Amino acid sequence: MKTKTIAFDADDTLWINETIFTSTRAKFKAMIAKYVSDEFLDDKLYQTEKRNLCIFGYGIKGFTLSMIETALEITKEQISGRDIHQIMAFAKDMLVHPVELMAEVENTLKALKENYRLMVITKGDLFDQETKIARSGLADYFDLIEIVSEKDERTYRHILHKHNISAENFIMIGNSVKSDILPVCALGGKAIHVPFHETWTHEIVPEEQAAAYFYDTITSLAELPDLIKNTWS
Amino acid sequence: MKTKTIAFDADDTLWINETIFTSTRAKFKAMIAKYVSDEFLDDKLYQTEKRNLCIFGYGIKGFTLSMIETALEITKEQISGRDIHQIMAFAKDMLVHPVELMAEVENTLKALKENYRLMVITKGDLFDQETKIARSGLADYFDLIEIVSEKDERTYRHILHKHNISAENFIMIGNSVKSDILPVCALGGKAIHVPFHETWTHEIVPEEQAAAYFYDTITSLAELPDLIKNTWS
Repeated sequence: MKTKTIAFDADDTLWINETIFTSTRAKFKAMIAKYVSDEFLDDKLYQTEKRNLCIFGYGIKGFTLSMIETALEITKEQISGRDIHQIMAFAKDMLVHPVELMAEVENTLKALKENYRLMVITKGDLFDQETKIARSGLADYFDLIEIVSEKDERTYRHILHKHNISAENFIMIGNSVKSDILPVCALGGKAIHVPFHETWTHEIVPEEQAAAYFYDTITSLAELPDLIKNTWS
Repeated sequence: MKTKTIAFDADDTLWINETIFTSTRAKFKAMIAKYVSDEFLDDKLYQTEKRNLCIFGYGIKGFTLSMIETALEITKEQISGRDIHQIMAFAKDMLVHPVELMAEVENTLKALKENYRLMVITKGDLFDQETKIARSGLADYFDLIEIVSEKDERTYRHILHKHNISAENFIMIGNSVKSDILPVCALGGKAIHVPFHETWTHEIVPEEQAAAYFYDTITSLAELPDLIKNTWS
């Protein structure tokens, strides 16, 4: 009987994600540079995304609509149809981008699966996350998959309650201090941070906020089985 | 102990939805008419939507991206930035459109809740469906809410299995023969059709396909408590 559940974030924890956004933002900036030079373009795009989050939610489709909106605003609606078409092509490239697994993901999951119930908790577009899980080839390692629209204390409380998991038997692994670590610590669960070298502005939290909680940090998922064995068995 | 579960589709069953799409399509057509006269525009938009379903999934954000793509194609990329901006405004109007409940929804749910476990099974954008359920004021009537990316036999089998519901104890109510009725009948469950006066082309099934199964049809949710009482108690 497996009494403990280990849950993994997906984007930038199991597979690379932010890099795809970063490279799309670079292509977007290069395109807009034909119309206006704007050193604050990154920030303007982020402000549009942030403003639209409350109606679009997370994910590539909302990001694409925010790119189009930002392009229209920055160019005072002078952007060409051809360039809007190009932004649509960026979106489609992102949506069908091959799922590139992080190093040691499969070995780690294989090692942990023997003794723990494994779970994915990921936020974003339902359809996009489902196809990524399918394309990753990792689906069979997981007993439970939860795709949610936000990862805050309320969401984690709901998931733990739904699956009858107590906080002390739950451990969350992820790259985002804001979404994967702090809300789980706040509920009395355990969390392990695996930083990814790129972090979306929206997921960054002030250091003092993170310092209020204790959690382990590892540099690769390969360290996970030993860390869990040593601290939780 | 409630042994039977009654599940409701949401869009065009609990609240009006297709009407919002229909009126947006009309505004979109009027806009495109400034560039080209195209009597097949509706069909072209649908063909774009259908082609994109496999990467966008269902929902308003994907529909909006398909409107933009269709506009670019039809106008040979000559559509103005101002009009693309207008399409973005259509999208935002749709996303914040007030949730207009169907007649008798609350009385029906109230009457059924006493003796049955109630559920929502809806497909579309996770974030959009969640906010609609919240804004509908109906969330508290439901014991279970499932937002899925597709409503086919596989999905229903998965949901029934997950919640330990046997097909003979399950009844599905909805406006779409394709998504709400046939897959449930095929699994041995019961389904009741409540047609809505508008149906998206994608949800239409040939009559002979529907004729292979037996299911009841009612004209309003108000008929539901009596029908269920008479056939299922």
